[in-house]
Order: sequence, then C-alpha cells, then structure tokens
Amino acid sequence: MRIIVAGGDGFCGWPTALYLSELGHDVTIVDNLVRRKIDVELMSGSVTPIATLDERVAAWREVTGRTIGVRIGDLNDYEFLSGVFRDVKPEAFVHFAEQRSAPYSMIDREHAVYTQSNNVLGTLNVLYAIKEYAPDCHLVKLGTMGEYGTPNIDIEEGYLTVEHKGRQETFLYPKTPGSFYHLSKVHDTNNIYFACRMWGIRATDLNQGVVYNVRTPQTELDPRLANRFDYDGIFGTALDRFVAQAAVGHPLTVYGRGGQTRGYINILDTVRCLQLACENPPEPGKLRVMNQFTQWFSVNQLAQTVKRVGDGMGLDVTIEHLDNPRIEREDDHYFHAVNTSLISLGLEPHMLDDQTVASILELAIANRDRINQSLICNSPTWK
Amino acid sequence: MRIIVAGGDGFCGWPTALYLSELGHDVTIVDNLVRRKIDVELMSGSVTPIATLDERVAAWREVTGRTIGVRIGDLNDYEFLSGVFRDVKPEAFVHFAEQRSAPYSMIDREHAVYTQSNNVLGTLNVLYAIKEYAPDCHLVKLGTMGEYGTPNIDIEEGYLTVEHKGRQETFLYPKTPGSFYHLSKVHDTNNIYFACRMWGIRATDLNQGVVYNVRTPQTELDPRLANRFDYDGIFGTALDRFVAQAAVGHPLTVYGRGGQTRGYINILDTVRCLQLACENPPEPGKLRVMNQFTQWFSVNQLAQTVKRVGDGMGLDVTIEHLDNPRIEREDDHYFHAVNTSLISLGLEPHMLDDQTVASILELAIANRDRINQSLICNSPTWK
Repeated sequence: MRIIVAGGDGFCGWPTALYLSELGHDVTIVDNLVRRKIDVELMSGSVTPIATLDERVAAWREVTGRTIGVRIGDLNDYEFLSGVFRDVKPEAFVHFAEQRSAPYSMIDREHAVYTQSNNVLGTLNVLYAIKEYAPDCHLVKLGTMGEYGTPNIDIEEGYLTVEHKGRQETFLYPKTPGSFYHLSKVHDTNNIYFACRMWGIRATDLNQGVVYNVRTPQTELDPRLANRFDYDGIFGTALDRFVAQAAVGHPLTVYGRGGQTRGYINILDTVRCLQLACENPPEPGKLRVMNQFTQWFSVNQLAQTVKRVGDGMGLDVTIEHLDNPRIEREDDHYFHAVNTSLISLGLEPHMLDDQTVASILELAIANRDRINQSLICNSPTWK
Repeated sequence: MRIIVAGGDGFCGWPTALYLSELGHDVTIVDNLVRRKIDVELMSGSVTPIATLDERVAAWREVTGRTIGVRIGDLNDYEFLSGVFRDVKPEAFVHFAEQRSAPYSMIDREHAVYTQSNNVLGTLNVLYAIKEYAPDCHLVKLGTMGEYGTPNIDIEEGYLTVEHKGRQETFLYPKTPGSFYHLSKVHDTNNIYFACRMWGIRATDLNQGVVYNVRTPQTELDPRLANRFDYDGIFGTALDRFVAQAAVGHPLTVYGRGGQTRGYINILDTVRCLQLACENPPEPGKLRVMNQFTQWFSVNQLAQTVKRVGDGMGLDVTIEHLDNPRIEREDDHYFHAVNTSLISLGLEPHMLDDQTVASILELAIANRDRINQSLICNSPTWK
C-alpha cells in the first residue's frame, strides 16, 4: 500500500514510518522538520541523540534494504502538497504533521495562532488534495483523547447518541478541550467530518492518549534509527518526563493534586494501531473515530510507579506537587472512556509494567548528560 | 458605553453602528473594507447605491451631530488591533468582522482557507487583545443558526444537557454545520468558550438566523446612510434575494425541493438584539449563547410569500426549482429551535408580513437597473 506518513520525522511518526515500511508498505515521509526547529527555539532537545532525517532513511535502507521516500515541505504550501499527491498517488495519508504540544500552544498569542493556523489550515489543504488528486485515499488523522476533556459521562468513540425531549440524534461527541492545541484538533475533526459528508472522503480519526516509551524493535536496529525522547515541560509527555526526572535525581513534578486522569498508550501499540487503521479503511464518505489508548491512569499513579521502579533500581526518587500551570480538574474526577474499536481490529495492548518503566529509565540514565534540568519546569501557565 | 463595532461597514454592522450611536453609545467602527473588495472580486454590488465609509460617517455627523469613530485595519494584524484596544478602551466589542457567506467559502480551496483563517485567527486575536488590554470588555460575537445544522432534536440556546448511561453532563450544543464558513463559526465558539473558562472573559455568542430587510430608521435619514442590499447567489440571503429576483422578472430560484427550514430575523430586530446584548453583559467567565432569530420558514414558504406580494403588486412572479448547489436536507425535515433569551431581555420581534416584503420589493424595483441577472445563479456547488 502506498502510504504517506506526514510528520514522519517526529516522535510517533518516525517509528510508524519504520513499522509500516518493515511490513512491506511503500512509505513516503512528508515533513517540514519544524519539530527540530522548535528544539532550537526552546533550546531543548531529545534525551536520545537522533540522526538527521536523511541519515535515518539512509540507515534504514542500509540495514533493511527498504526504501522510504522523503519529501521536505509544508502542508500549508499547497503547491508542494499537490505535487506530492500527484507523484505518490497515496492510498493512505497518515497525518501526524501537526504542532502537538498543549503547553507550546499556550506560550503566547503567536504560538496559539501558529498552532491553529498550522494544524487547521494544513489539514484543510490535505482534504482538498485528497478531493482533487486521490479521492479514494484514506485519511488517517491523529486526534487526541484531550479533545474530549474530562466530561462527567462516559467518553464514547467519536459519536454520541442523544435523547432529548422524546427525540433522538447522533452527533459527533461534544468536546471540551483544554488548550488551543487541543482545540485545533477539534476544529480538524469538524472539518474532516464535513469533507466526508460532502465529498465522500474516507477518514479515520485516531484519538490518541498520552504516548509513553520511546523505542520499537525497528528503531533499535541501528543507533542512527533512534527515536526522539522528550523530557522538557513543553514537549515531554507525562510518563517519559517523570522517568527523565528520576534519571537525573530531580523530584517528579506532579502538577497540582495529581488526580488528573488520562488515557495512555505504549508507542509499540501506537505503530500497530496505525497499521490496523491503514489496512482496514472505512467506506467512502465515512469518518470513523477510534480511541487509541489502552489504559488510564492518574498523574499520581504514574508518579508512584516511576518512584517504585526507580527506588528498586537504587535511585532515591521523590515526588513534588507544583502549582499547576494548567487549568484542569485535579481531584479524583470521573474518567471512563471506550477503546474497543482498535482491539476489535486486532490490537493486543502492551499494558504498562515495571519492566517497561525500567527500560525507559535505563535509556534515560544512559543519556543522563543530555538532560538539561532547567527545561524540566518550563511550561507556560494557562493564565 | 464605549463600543467597537468590528465589521461596521457591512450589511448588519452598519445599521448596528448607527442604532447604537443614536442610543448615545460611543461607537468606533473597525473595518478592513474587505466586503467592498469582494464586490470587486465577484463583479457584484449592492442593489442600493452605498456611500464610502468616510462619506457615511460624515453624513451621520451632519444629520445627527453624533460622531462615529473609524479605524481601518484588519483583526489579523495584531499590532493594529492592540493599538485600537489601547486607544478605545472598549467596554463591548461587537464582532461582525468575519467572512459571512457560505457559498463564498465553498468556491475553492483558497476561499475555504481564507474564510477559516480570517475568521478563526481574527477572533483568536480579539480574545488575546481583550485578555491583554481590556479584560472586562464584553465580546459580543456573531455566530449563526447554521452552526447547528438541522438536527432531529430541538435546538437549544448554545448548551445541551445530556443523560448518558445514568450520568449527566452539560456540553456546548453539538454542531453539524454545512459549509466551511459555518464551520469557522463553530471553531470560534469553541475557542471563545475556552477563553471564557481559562481567562474569565465575558462573551455573548449570538447565533443569528438569516437576516432579511435592508433599511432601518437610521439608514433612512439620508441617502448617504443607505445600507447595502445583496442579491447575488453568493452574498444575497434568501428572502432579499427572492425579492430582487421578483423585481427584475427572474423566476425565484428555489434550490432543490425547497423544504430547507431555517430561522429568520428582520434587520430591525438584529440591531435591537445587539443593543440588548451589549447593555446586559454576562458575568465574567461566562459564555452566554442566544439564538437570534424570530421565526422559521422553509424556502418554499418564502418563495410563496414573495410571489403573493409580487403578484399583488402587478408583477408576474414565477418559481423555479433548481438543482441544489448545496448538500443539505431539502425535504420537510425537523426544525425546532429555542429563541427565548433575547425576548426575555426585551426584544419585541417584527414578524414577517406582506407589507415588509412589499417595502423591500419597492426598494428593489426603484434600483432595478443595478441588478445584474447573471449574478443571480452564481453560487458554487458544494461538490
């Protein structure tokens, strides 16, 4: 299958591109390299040393004999994007190419406008490119569980059937997202749903939970294939961030009371979910929504897990509750979300265990000198 | 009250600015004149001759002694916008300054991207300007009844309380809009709701129905104060468009079967609703949503009304059902929407009557030579 992986140089995109390539798919990475430029802007970087994208795909070819195409450019440049569509004739377009940090979107007005402009207009361009050049192409779009917020009712997979005054209607699940980033994904979902209804486009919206872990069997084949590992307060995700903090002897930074409960997923399952979505496209005209997470945890549970594993490895891990830079529910709030669609398609979840945490911790310890402690608490406040 | 009317040179903005000025408010119009530039682009124009904005405010001053401030610029230019906020220190910001035509947003990719970029990012800038320069300023934002689409359940005013698996939550009412324009307003609503929750901004979202009629007592004080009257297939709204067609002997162009039912409002009520919203702000942190329409009609009902009135005036009005350029329900679908909030605040609706239709028809007949029949069916298709 000819698959474009947009954002294929990033934390989820790179291991996904490798996994799909190993399975025999014809993969082309489209990336504008902005994630690396943001490292420059924020004076941050990956815990793991990462090769350039050219070095990465050359190493992949050397090690496996498989070729991954690379097109450097921006989805917001429609001339570039339409050229890629004409050349590649994709059967699936995996869309990771969005600014994906909530704190980054909340730094200031410029970053909020950049996030919504980049994400929403870029995706609009993708919809038009599919319509114009590849109407059968399946859009596999990364959403986020954060689109839903933390409602007091069960989170279904994308849609909600409502009974009201004796009548019934099925809507896209109503969303209450918690940052301009999360909002951009809600805007995307609404735009994609419209394009499906109007133009008969087929799309899958993968509302992904917080991704943890770093390595996959493919990224381990050669040091030049290493995946990035973010630990800073802006791009680091909860579990990986705590592990990096434990590795350098920094207290684990729990925001507020730590009752914030979210869906999580191991990156090994992320790449498998992308395969399952691509290989099982929905009917034309349909927006299929799947919740891509395997378990849910509170921040306190994660911190306790990292402490237990770290202490067991001879570290002295402490936990600190900081003023929460975000505005969100911190108490033991209701959180119950459905995630059966991907399991029905064949996902066999990797459940979080101490061994996984230990392996991430070993990776962080091995690269301890690359962790800049001044970046651990660099999240902007939501106010 | 110091009130900015953004988009104050447009079809609803201009009569609103005059009405608020006559009531003694200190009004500043902010406009980038793009609506007039779009007339140039589409080779269209108003049925009524309209003066330039400078001539308009000069005439208003001459006739009433009242001054309306004018600031020419774009909400997407934050340096301009923040200067306006610093100078004016608004207590209310009435926001009509969006691309407001569904067909215009559907012309092609460029027009879709322009519409969402202009509307969503412009409003993001307004939210940041309020936060930064005028945190007490009440944002009075024009939404549209078209955000809701045509659900099979009652349309409430902005929020919906859902019972699901024995639990309950109140959400923003789930929306299923029918164009990239309508989607842009949904994106706005989600962004504004977030800013209210995070920053304590106060906002009112006025989900307006289709506006008909043209003149208000204020626009009639002098020919230079005349309001614009759109009749083309892109910017003309249903009733006014039919009236213009009747005036030139063109068949009334009903799209498809004509069962499309929507909320409508007389422009005399629009300006009153804006006053009521401005003078009764919600509490800080609250997004109040009010449905700003007074009656609902199917397109067939409107066409029949215009035919009856036109025939009574000696015209021979015919009705033609065209292939529908839009993708929407054309049968006798369910439509039942709540509109009690503005009435509770004091709105006394002008109900549609034959006399009103006759007066619009007289205006169109008097300017018959300004109607270009080739623009009557210029709507792009949704496909």
